[in-house]
Amino acid sequence: MARERKAGKPLLSDTRMNRKRRARSVFAAGAPSALGVKAGILTPQKVTATMRVRPMHLNRNKVVNGGMIMAFADVVGAAGAVLNRPIQRRGGTLESKTNFFAPGRAPKLLAEAVPLHIGRTTSVWQTTVRNADGRMVAIVTQTQMSLPRDDNGG
Amino acid sequence: MARERKAGKPLLSDTRMNRKRRARSVFAAGAPSALGVKAGILTPQKVTATMRVRPMHLNRNKVVNGGMIMAFADVVGAAGAVLNRPIQRRGGTLESKTNFFAPGRAPKLLAEAVPLHIGRTTSVWQTTVRNADGRMVAIVTQTQMSLPRDDNGG
Amino acid sequence: MARERKAGKPLLSDTRMNRKRRARSVFAAGAPSALGVKAGILTPQKVTATMRVRPMHLNRNKVVNGGMIMAFADVVGAAGAVLNRPIQRRGGTLESKTNFFAPGRAPKLLAEAVPLHIGRTTSVWQTTVRNADGRMVAIVTQTQMSLPRDDNGG
Amino acid sequence: MARERKAGKPLLSDTRMNRKRRARSVFAAGAPSALGVKAGILTPQKVTATMRVRPMHLNRNKVVNGGMIMAFADVVGAAGAVLNRPIQRRGGTLESKTNFFAPGRAPKLLAEAVPLHIGRTTSVWQTTVRNADGRMVAIVTQTQMSLPRDDNGG
Repeated sequence: MARERKAGKPLLSDTRMNRKRRARSVFAAGAPSALGVKAGILTPQKVTATMRVRPMHLNRNKVVNGGMIMAFADVVGAAGAVLNRPIQRRGGTLESKTNFFAPGRAPKLLAEAVPLHIGRTTSVWQTTVRNADGRMVAIVTQTQMSLPRDDNGG
Repeated sequence: MARERKAGKPLLSDTRMNRKRRARSVFAAGAPSALGVKAGILTPQKVTATMRVRPMHLNRNKVVNGGMIMAFADVVGAAGAVLNRPIQRRGGTLESKTNFFAPGRAPKLLAEAVPLHIGRTTSVWQTTVRNADGRMVAIVTQTQMSLPRDDNGG
Repeated sequence: MARERKAGKPLLSDTRMNRKRRARSVFAAGAPSALGVKAGILTPQKVTATMRVRPMHLNRNKVVNGGMIMAFADVVGAAGAVLNRPIQRRGGTLESKTNFFAPGRAPKLLAEAVPLHIGRTTSVWQTTVRNADGRMVAIVTQTQMSLPRDDNGG
Repeated sequence: MARERKAGKPLLSDTRMNRKRRARSVFAAGAPSALGVKAGILTPQKVTATMRVRPMHLNRNKVVNGGMIMAFADVVGAAGAVLNRPIQRRGGTLESKTNFFAPGRAPKLLAEAVPLHIGRTTSVWQTTVRNADGRMVAIVTQTQMSLPRDDNGG
């Protein structure tokens, strides 16, 4: 795949700064924006975020819907994967496992994701979701794939 | 909460019709409404639903966010649990496992949940999410608790 | 490992018969042999096996140890992955999820694995374990990787 | 349920010492003995164990069978649950989730289980399995039930 480029300038730059920009773009997408997820720390070894609880997050019993908690955590783990993935590779969530411990409640939820494993083909992220008072609401463990862009994987 | 009742009429009736009403109320809550989840079949052995794909469901690459798929499936499995749960018991999602197979795409997603197990304390639901063309997007397996209302479980 | 071959004959043949031979070798390994796992049907779309219950499989309460059930199912899912994997690729279990429904009991357990997804990079297998009377004991869902032999993945 | 007993002597004693004795009996059962699992630390907040790798644990490629790793971890998590469970309650593994990171290898595997949650009805245990050189092999997260002895749960 011949591509012209100026001497010394890589076609695709993949600096730490650029990865961070791509991780920010994860939060800027339609779903995280609609959910109100805000990025905090964005490093390859830790990602944090918050989600202010609104009526759209609630179940009929006024606690946060479990699916909304998983959606929140998924964004945070995906950002962690992006921060560790070379630009030549593409990815996505392969599988996700959640244990729920306590109801999620207003005013907001906090998430912190750390990598359990960073491999070439997969990374595994563990995201802990807490209430504002620090009580643990759920732990989400996810496998994120990292495949060459020309491999349609599956 | 004072309630008047006629002699011989149970305070809480628990007919199949009432359980169906409670299952409908699962879909009427804030989170499922915000996601645009619509109930289809509502029986103790099968629950179906649809979710029209809108910008709020999307990732930066214009496919449905994995978390939104899990949130969609969670509603459907929870409705199945409610359809099997006596009114004297309360519940919630204890844990959830998702395998993703293909991108979720517009115009809409379809979900079908069937019970793998209906026990006294737990029920286990498997929800298959498909694109409108029938392609399997994800399978979500969840354990739903069923505890006496006076047991704060955990 | 010197191998002679006739002109025009590929070094590694990958017929359906050979894949079946490799799947049989999964059952012949140390762990499945020690557990007493016996192969039944071995096709790319279904794998079955049995495990006669012996004292080595039991918990202190005389039911089959949950770990032994997972080990049994893992062999069956792995054989299914081998039956679908080209010889140029290597693999292994990436992740596994088990739901337990009823105690496993003597005289023997039966397992049946079917693929939920056969992709290029992963296959996902669902294995149902039953008692001899047909009662469902557990369902195990596993992701099996399939990577080029020169990719050390991870 | 009238039971006669001598003044001051409880029918069922449930001291910390007795719970530890019951946790030891988990390791003494048929399955853990056959696998060669040896208990280490046994406290309500941490359980450790080792498993010497023998031919019975191996796959055809001479690494430890994934199922054997899950069986090893299951024993350790179950012991943790017993250390936290009142004698009036009975339990068992409800579900188990494993992510595999690296091959398990001789000479031995080490496991350390810590509780993520200790509730009245469930406890959730996370068990990390490592090779002798400290490399992380797998993480297993399990929900252990705790039900009244006269409730046949399910």
